[in-house]
Amino acid sequence: MQVEYAPLFLGIDGGGSKCRAVIVGADGAVLGSGLGGPASPFQGFEQSIASITAATHRALASAGLEEARARRLHACLGLAGVNLPAVHRQVLEWAHPFSDVLVATDSRVACIGAHGGADGAILIAGTGSCGYAMVDGEEVLVGGHGFPCGDKGGGAWTGLRALEHVLRTLDGLGEPTSLVARLLTHLGARDALGLVGRLGGHGAVEYARLAPLVFAAADEGDKVATAIVREGAEYLDGLARRLLAAAPPRMSLRMSLIGGLAPLVTRWLAPEVAAALSPALEAPEMGSVRLAVQHWHERAAGQATG
Amino acid sequence: MQVEYAPLFLGIDGGGSKCRAVIVGADGAVLGSGLGGPASPFQGFEQSIASITAATHRALASAGLEEARARRLHACLGLAGVNLPAVHRQVLEWAHPFSDVLVATDSRVACIGAHGGADGAILIAGTGSCGYAMVDGEEVLVGGHGFPCGDKGGGAWTGLRALEHVLRTLDGLGEPTSLVARLLTHLGARDALGLVGRLGGHGAVEYARLAPLVFAAADEGDKVATAIVREGAEYLDGLARRLLAAAPPRMSLRMSLIGGLAPLVTRWLAPEVAAALSPALEAPEMGSVRLAVQHWHERAAGQATG
Repeated sequence: MQVEYAPLFLGIDGGGSKCRAVIVGADGAVLGSGLGGPASPFQGFEQSIASITAATHRALASAGLEEARARRLHACLGLAGVNLPAVHRQVLEWAHPFSDVLVATDSRVACIGAHGGADGAILIAGTGSCGYAMVDGEEVLVGGHGFPCGDKGGGAWTGLRALEHVLRTLDGLGEPTSLVARLLTHLGARDALGLVGRLGGHGAVEYARLAPLVFAAADEGDKVATAIVREGAEYLDGLARRLLAAAPPRMSLRMSLIGGLAPLVTRWLAPEVAAALSPALEAPEMGSVRLAVQHWHERAAGQATG
Repeated sequence: MQVEYAPLFLGIDGGGSKCRAVIVGADGAVLGSGLGGPASPFQGFEQSIASITAATHRALASAGLEEARARRLHACLGLAGVNLPAVHRQVLEWAHPFSDVLVATDSRVACIGAHGGADGAILIAGTGSCGYAMVDGEEVLVGGHGFPCGDKGGGAWTGLRALEHVLRTLDGLGEPTSLVARLLTHLGARDALGLVGRLGGHGAVEYARLAPLVFAAADEGDKVATAIVREGAEYLDGLARRLLAAAPPRMSLRMSLIGGLAPLVTRWLAPEVAAALSPALEAPEMGSVRLAVQHWHERAAGQATG
């Protein structure tokens, strides 16, 4: 005789620097959560799978469930990079340990979370940058093309611009503002060779760690840091305006600014963009759970009528 | 009884995109040459060694020599990235197949080649960018910190800036100049997703392949391409002025512009910088041979007196 269990849902939010997992019961109660490493399958498929697995195991443990219970989870994986068809296919082909899996972009689950499942828009300023809106069942996506060719205004872009300035100054070709000393001290480097040894060839996540220093310098009036932060904020303004223009006339689109840079960059945004922002209602991984629950109901309805 | 052979010299010029090898006899005659793949040990040590080995084997074959003759070669490896102490050490620890090995930066061997061993300066505009001078036994190095944090004005930087513009335009945030159509056609992409699928996550060499298109668009008056090319050329002007300032007063420093972008970027340089340029006398790998020969003579002299 088979034992009937109430369904369990797993929500994943996996980006370029970390992966968050949450397990929610049929009644909507959060049972456990866990954190994992970088989880963008575009940047590294094996790493992504490893991070999703680790975050899920931690969430199961914090819920007091054995790892074997993964088989019962109805999962939704919200992942960066799965808007690329080849990457999406690769994730779908994963021999996952769950009951079933739905794959969505990290932007989509973040937007669903931010507005509790209702229509709305998000402006992401984390390691990368991106604009996303869901209006009347239509997705709008602007930016978010990945570092280094896109993601302007994000942490990696901000850190890289600052690093460029420091290197230029050490070559005698830039102005030695306070930003230079700040970065050198932070990285424990004394010259260009030391800096490049520390950061050269590294990725978006390492550059993004420098972004808070750039905002701190800009807040104290450093000229170069201010120019970098302004240029990034203007790009984010542009993304926001494109999203707001996507809403039908007279509809007031709910828009949230999310990501690690959000608290730092808000005061640099154009006044009308800043005024259009509302706080996110739920975390991205909870948006992922919403999708998993919706999918489960749809299948249940399909089985009942089919 | 041991057979006495005349010495054979191997000159290597290894950069981020390719490796050139040349074999020269004791009389200075070029016996053979060969080409290999990317050879910057900073970007990938194993790849660098494989490229150096492949280029050397091809040079031996073109000289009509067996691979085993590598044991007779007095080699100088001019390699990108060996100004970093850790990278330099790693190359020195390689169990090489040669008689002996000298390791130098690619800038140094290029400068020695460009001026036939005499004092002078080089401005490199290839995949990356860099300025180097040797004056009275003193090295001056400006720029060349590697992509993406340095190397402004080089091919990778130029291509990346153009790609940023195309993506911004496809998002409705940039001006659709001729550069956009040019890049999309060249890459066989129709939208941002296609572009990122083709180029996202790729490296300096792939971005650098776009640089000639940017120069072509600038030459035809494209506004955005012109702004990118100008910004890059101004940076190269800055490197050149730093090098020219390094020469003692009244000494006329011989300066050469080398690298794949040289023919394209010259007309965009400041008039006084362009006027200060002289053609390179020898290829970088011949500069490497010069160092190998000099090293061999020094050791011979040391053995005679020691």
